[in-house]
Amino acid sequence: MPAPSENPKLLHPGKRICQIIKIKPEKLEEYKELHANVWPNVLAKMTKYHIEDYSIHLIPELNLLVANLKYTGDDWATDSEAMRNDPDNHEWWKVTDALQESLVPGSTGSTDKKGWWRDLEEVFRFDG
Amino acid sequence: MPAPSENPKLLHPGKRICQIIKIKPEKLEEYKELHANVWPNVLAKMTKYHIEDYSIHLIPELNLLVANLKYTGDDWATDSEAMRNDPDNHEWWKVTDALQESLVPGSTGSTDKKGWWRDLEEVFRFDG
Repeated sequence: MPAPSENPKLLHPGKRICQIIKIKPEKLEEYKELHANVWPNVLAKMTKYHIEDYSIHLIPELNLLVANLKYTGDDWATDSEAMRNDPDNHEWWKVTDALQESLVPGSTGSTDKKGWWRDLEEVFRFDG
Repeated sequence: MPAPSENPKLLHPGKRICQIIKIKPEKLEEYKELHANVWPNVLAKMTKYHIEDYSIHLIPELNLLVANLKYTGDDWATDSEAMRNDPDNHEWWKVTDALQESLVPGSTGSTDKKGWWRDLEEVFRFDG
C-alpha cells in the first residue's frame, strides 16, 4: 500500500484499514468482556505503533468481527512487524486468538507474518 | 444511540458507524466504477449532513460491502431523515440500490425508514 505520507489528508490524516475475522459463537460474550476491560499495555502498544480510531463491529448472523483502524505512521511494514514481535501483545493474543478463527489461509495466529485478521480491499473513500 | 455531543472525543470527535450490505456479484465492477467517479452532489450532501471519513470495503468471499463512517453532528435522527428525503440522493440511490440486496428485513430501498444498509453493533473502541 502507498505510504500515508505520499497521500496526506488534511482532515483525517493516515491510512484507513479494514479487517475481518471469525468469532467462535460460544466465545462472543468472553470476547466482549475482554474488550470492555482491555489491557492498558495493549492500548499503549497501539499508540506506540501509530494506530488510532480503532473500532470493532459484529456481524452476528455470520459470526464475523469487522475491525476498522487508522494508521498514522509512515512505515506500516516496519510498525506492523514490531507490533507482531512485541511481548506485551503476545500475552493478549494468546487469549484473543483462542476465541477466533482466521480467514487468512494457513495462518497460525496473530504472530504469523501472513496476518491473522484478513485485510479487506477499499472500494470507496470520502475523507470529508 | 447517544448523541455524540454527550460523549466528546478530542482526537476523533463524532460517532463511528459501521454498516453492511450485499453486492450483486455480477454488479461489482459497475459499483466500483460508480464510486471511482462518485457524483459531486452526493459528496456535498454527506458534508451537509455531517458525515465524513467514509470508506467502503469489500469482503469478496461473501459478496459483502462494509461501510464505515464518522457522524460529527449532534442529531443523527434528524440528519439521517433529511438525508433520506434529499432529492439529490434519490437519483444516486436509484442507481446504487439496483446493485445491492439489503440485509435489513423487509427494506425496500435507501429511502425506507428501516434503512437499507444494516447497522452493526460496536463491540470495541479505542479512540487513540
